[in-house]
Amino acid sequence: MNFTISSKSLDKVNKKIEKVLKAKSALSIYENVLVRAEEQAVYFTVSDGNESIVHRLLAVENELTVKSIGAAVLSQECLSLMKNLKGDISLEVMEKVVKVTQQKTEVTFAVLDAEDFPMIQQEKNTKAITLSGKEFENIVKKTNISASDKDSRPILTGIHMFFSEHGNVFTSTDSHRLSQIKQGSFGEELTIVVPAKILSNMVSVFDLDESVMIFPSDNQIIFFNGNTFYYTRKLEGTYPKVDQLIPQEFSSNLVVDKEEFYQAVDLISMLGGKEKAFLLKINGLFLKVSAGAETSKGNKEIAFDTYDGPENLEVKLSGKFVCSAIKEMDSKKILIGFNGPEKPVVIRPMSENNTEIQLVLPIRIK
Amino acid sequence: MNFTISSKSLDKVNKKIEKVLKAKSALSIYENVLVRAEEQAVYFTVSDGNESIVHRLLAVENELTVKSIGAAVLSQECLSLMKNLKGDISLEVMEKVVKVTQQKTEVTFAVLDAEDFPMIQQEKNTKAITLSGKEFENIVKKTNISASDKDSRPILTGIHMFFSEHGNVFTSTDSHRLSQIKQGSFGEELTIVVPAKILSNMVSVFDLDESVMIFPSDNQIIFFNGNTFYYTRKLEGTYPKVDQLIPQEFSSNLVVDKEEFYQAVDLISMLGGKEKAFLLKINGLFLKVSAGAETSKGNKEIAFDTYDGPENLEVKLSGKFVCSAIKEMDSKKILIGFNGPEKPVVIRPMSENNTEIQLVLPIRIK
Repeated sequence: MNFTISSKSLDKVNKKIEKVLKAKSALSIYENVLVRAEEQAVYFTVSDGNESIVHRLLAVENELTVKSIGAAVLSQECLSLMKNLKGDISLEVMEKVVKVTQQKTEVTFAVLDAEDFPMIQQEKNTKAITLSGKEFENIVKKTNISASDKDSRPILTGIHMFFSEHGNVFTSTDSHRLSQIKQGSFGEELTIVVPAKILSNMVSVFDLDESVMIFPSDNQIIFFNGNTFYYTRKLEGTYPKVDQLIPQEFSSNLVVDKEEFYQAVDLISMLGGKEKAFLLKINGLFLKVSAGAETSKGNKEIAFDTYDGPENLEVKLSGKFVCSAIKEMDSKKILIGFNGPEKPVVIRPMSENNTEIQLVLPIRIK
Repeated sequence: MNFTISSKSLDKVNKKIEKVLKAKSALSIYENVLVRAEEQAVYFTVSDGNESIVHRLLAVENELTVKSIGAAVLSQECLSLMKNLKGDISLEVMEKVVKVTQQKTEVTFAVLDAEDFPMIQQEKNTKAITLSGKEFENIVKKTNISASDKDSRPILTGIHMFFSEHGNVFTSTDSHRLSQIKQGSFGEELTIVVPAKILSNMVSVFDLDESVMIFPSDNQIIFFNGNTFYYTRKLEGTYPKVDQLIPQEFSSNLVVDKEEFYQAVDLISMLGGKEKAFLLKINGLFLKVSAGAETSKGNKEIAFDTYDGPENLEVKLSGKFVCSAIKEMDSKKILIGFNGPEKPVVIRPMSENNTEIQLVLPIRIK
């Protein structure tokens, strides 16, 4: 293997693979990068056992020139050192070493055989589901907030993706809150649960101006974007039936300015201890958020647009949950639906094509 | 105590006191801020026992208005919450609580009595040593690199400051390297050793366009800048006699481009293991830095301006020490003096009024 790569192109490759390369993993081989040069492209493969990235760099003048094909496993240290070189960098693999040269700098690193790197199974591709980069980002951003970060119920650490010709539905829940968004449709009916953290990593690596193609197969799922193939395992297990948990009607409906509500809850819930609990008091005249502990208490009144429902309503909520639920909503006004102080609270953006639901369970008032 | 402060002014105060306020300390009282309102100013005092800051905010229209004088100890939580308020914020201390109001937000926090906060001894001021902010920054930046970060010899964690009418000398050493800079003069002969870390904190807090006045006294030293009084204890003990360690003559002298030398050492010493050891090889024809371990090795040739000395010289050095020594030097070229492979190496900027010395001990070549 022998090729010359520009430091700019190498920077781009590093940005794609760095996070997975540096992730902790059970196998020490995963601290390395598999580099495979073919005539028209060089492929960089990294993995931590759960997620793998194959990034393809095409041979383009002044960016990449392949002089001879081949493959080797390069160490993280080798890549780190190369990051500090500017200009055109040549890599040549000889007997068990790679020689890196750039002008008057010459460095050699031991390499491993390409065969030592675990193969990533290239399963026969099924029909692909295609989303635009922005749609993909929107789905991940709005559902990963409610995915569980605890391993006690692994299935809840995923985002449940249901594809059908009647519409795709993406859902997450940690059993205290739930996020759901509807987006597009797909010819076949299909359900997969994908680890939320890995989807979030994809968003940070993908070029969101390019489309994202999803290839589900028996053991894994491939997400393809630009020149990047992102592999993840599927989560196995029974996902809870959530549809029956989402109320369709509400005894009270409140419309408020998103930003004002967010800021008030964010501020006052600082006084609500570890779970950032706050009390929402509504009646026909005012809307007030309050919180308090032994040594501190506070409240803030907020203007609201409309409220219909019983004259007095008090609901205790987690400020952390409420703020993360509304932070990314794309509308100036939000609609909050209640069915009494102990029933799920549903927050939705006030927009015509609203397909997003953020549900938060109240904290019991003693 | 009752005053109104603009959120902008409060931001400025926070930037001054935050680091010390959040520092770990043996006494829980130091997790709080002493706030004292006088007619023309409000004083904010924080301490961690080793260093203390008293920052004075003057009463200026639209920034600070004092309605009634007094003092109280406010919690860190109270200050954190106030950071999230915008506009004019009113503080009123009543029976054991402070009421913070800003428009429709009203928050109360428990407070402690001002007497509960340990008094900072205001010793009778001696004659002050005055430095410009830039001079102060320069002294700290160029000496704190060689101060020890280990507690085994506490005196070496300080910067040794010697003031005299023949010139002030600032020195630091961790016994493997040494930094020395000469700056200004002072009428009286005086020696103090000030913790390097605290001086470094001062640089980040001080307004360096304003002068820094140093008031040494028996137990502590006050550094005064703008509206900030910074208190630190002195380090006690015998500082090593370093003058005899600094060679005045060299058997070899090398002049190189600072940036090129820095980049080569920084890059190649990555291969030199934990201590980033590299070998410097010089002769009349070339200058080469090299390093290597079992699985990797590398070298880089650098151009040099002049070299006089024996035909072949090899010195093994720590890349970490060399890079930090030259990083902040204010000259395009640097002068490196040698007296053989095991004698101290002295690096100086190539400038007319050179008053800076960076000394590094070589690593023994086996």
